[in-house]
Amino acid sequence: MRAARAAGRPVFGYNRSVEGVEAARFDGYDATTHLDEALTRAADLGAVVVLAVPMPALPTMLAHVRAVAPQCPLTDVTSVKGAVLEEVRAAGLLDRFVGGHPMTGTAHSGWTAGDADLFVGTPWVISVDDHVDPQVWAEVMTLALDCRAFVVPARSDEHDRAAATISHLPHLLAEALATTAGHVPLAFALAAGSFRDGTRVAATAPELVRAMCEANAGELLPVLDEALALLTRAREQLAQHGSVAELVTAGHAARVRYDSVSRPDIVGTVIGAAGWHEELAAAGRAGGVIRSALPIRDSRG
Amino acid sequence: MRAARAAGRPVFGYNRSVEGVEAARFDGYDATTHLDEALTRAADLGAVVVLAVPMPALPTMLAHVRAVAPQCPLTDVTSVKGAVLEEVRAAGLLDRFVGGHPMTGTAHSGWTAGDADLFVGTPWVISVDDHVDPQVWAEVMTLALDCRAFVVPARSDEHDRAAATISHLPHLLAEALATTAGHVPLAFALAAGSFRDGTRVAATAPELVRAMCEANAGELLPVLDEALALLTRAREQLAQHGSVAELVTAGHAARVRYDSVSRPDIVGTVIGAAGWHEELAAAGRAGGVIRSALPIRDSRG
Repeated sequence: MRAARAAGRPVFGYNRSVEGVEAARFDGYDATTHLDEALTRAADLGAVVVLAVPMPALPTMLAHVRAVAPQCPLTDVTSVKGAVLEEVRAAGLLDRFVGGHPMTGTAHSGWTAGDADLFVGTPWVISVDDHVDPQVWAEVMTLALDCRAFVVPARSDEHDRAAATISHLPHLLAEALATTAGHVPLAFALAAGSFRDGTRVAATAPELVRAMCEANAGELLPVLDEALALLTRAREQLAQHGSVAELVTAGHAARVRYDSVSRPDIVGTVIGAAGWHEELAAAGRAGGVIRSALPIRDSRG
Repeated sequence: MRAARAAGRPVFGYNRSVEGVEAARFDGYDATTHLDEALTRAADLGAVVVLAVPMPALPTMLAHVRAVAPQCPLTDVTSVKGAVLEEVRAAGLLDRFVGGHPMTGTAHSGWTAGDADLFVGTPWVISVDDHVDPQVWAEVMTLALDCRAFVVPARSDEHDRAAATISHLPHLLAEALATTAGHVPLAFALAAGSFRDGTRVAATAPELVRAMCEANAGELLPVLDEALALLTRAREQLAQHGSVAELVTAGHAARVRYDSVSRPDIVGTVIGAAGWHEELAAAGRAGGVIRSALPIRDSRG
C-alpha cells in the first residue's frame, strides 16, 4: 500500500488484524477489517486485487473474491507459485489471475515492518503461464514497475524450481550445518564468519521454513538430490584421493558467474502478441528483466 | 608484528617477499628477507618464534629453526593443528612447540592486509596437547593476550574437529549450493539474501579451500557424513511425509543455542600444576576463555 500510494495510485486495503488496520489508518491509509466491504469497492472500481496472505489462508480469501469480486484482475505475492495456481484454479478464478512474487522482504511482519521503498531495485517475478490474460498481466506489470521493482517474467514451475534452489535448499543446508555443529564440542566456541553466514537463515522461525519447503516439495526434492549427489561425490573423492578439487572448482566458478550476472532489459515484446508467453519466459530464463512497461497488443485490433 | 608492537613488545620479522619486507620497513618495522639472520637474532634473544606460513612451506621453515634456533619457544598460526603437530614432531622440535590458531583474518594477504587491531576481541586457540611445556604455553598465551585476543585452550584434535565443522564443512556446502544453482535456469536471476549468504565463502580462492579441507580430511569426513545423514533423512521425510520438521526444528534450536553462547572466564588454573593440560582442555570444551594471564607454577619449586 505504501509503495503503490507513493507512486500516486489510489489504494485501499483489508486486514483481519484490528491493530494492523488501526496502525495503517493512523498513518493515513484507507483500510478496513471488513473483507467483503473492501472486495465490493474493488468490484465497483475494477481494482487490481493483491492477495498477500500465507498459503493456508488462501482458500478462504479466494472464496470471498469469487463471491464478491470475480471480475477484478487478481494477483498474489506468495513465495510459491505452483501451489497458489492450483488453489486459484480450484476456486474458478484462473482467467483473471496472474501470479506474482516480489523477491524482497524483512524478517519482520505486520504494518510497522513495511516501507514504501521495500521494492526499489528488487526483482518482482510475474508468472507467464499459458493461461494468463494479456490485460491482467499488463496491470500487474504496471503495479510492480510503479513500486519501482523490475519485473522478471517466469513460468510458475520454473519460478518454483529456482526458488527451491536459491531459497529453500539454502535453508535446509543451514539447518544441517547448525545441527551438526551442535553435536561437536568446541564448535560454537570457535565459530566465526563462515559458520555465521552459513547458518544465518537457520534463525528463521521453523514454521516459516517448513511452510516454504513443504509447499514446494515437488521442486525442492530434485535440487536437494543434486546437492546430495555433489556432496557424496566430494566425500568419496576426499576419502579415496584426498581431494575436493572437483566440487570446489565447480562451486567457485558458479559463484563467480553469479557475481557477474547481468540483467539485460527485455524490449520489443508486445504483450498479447502471438507467442508472447513463451517469448517472455525465454527472456526471463536468460536473465532479462522489464524495467519499463512493455506495449500491449490492442485486443480490439 | 603490528599488534605485538602496539602492545609494546620488541618485534622483528622475516619474509621471503622483497616487496613485503620493504613495505614493512617503510612503515617502520624491523624486517629482513634473510631467514637465518632473523633466526640467529631470535636464538640470541630467546625470542618467541611465530611461524605464519602455509602448510607446504612448513618443513623448510622448521629445518631452519631446528638448525639455528632450536631452543626458542615456537608457535604457529596455521588453521589446521594436527598436521602441523606431525611436521613439528618430524623436525624434532616438539618440546619447545605450542600450536596456535588465531580465529581471525581477512580475504586478503600480504603486508598491506594487516592491521594492529586484527586480533582484538577474537578467539586465539592455543593447543594444550599432552606434550606442551608450561613455560612455552605461558609465553604464547601472553603473546595472544598482548594482541588483545582471548585465548581458547584446546587439544589439537578437538580443534581440528571443530574447525572441520564450523569452517571446512560450510565451505563444501557453499560450493554444492553454488554448483546446484548454476544448473538451474532462472536461479541466479532470482537469487537474494539466503543464496548470497549461503554461497559467500564459495568466492574464496579454490586453492585455499582445497588446502584447508584436504589437510583436515580425517576430521572433515565424519562431520560431512553427519551433515549428509541429516540431509538424506530430511529428504526421505519430505518425500514420504511431506515434512522437514525434524531437521528444521533441530537446526533452529542449535542456531538459537549458538546465538546465546556465553564465554565464561577461565580462572583458577595454574599452568604447569598437575593435570593442567586436561583442566584447560575441559574448560575450553565447555566454552571457557582466558582473558587475563593465568599464573604459572614455579618450575623450580
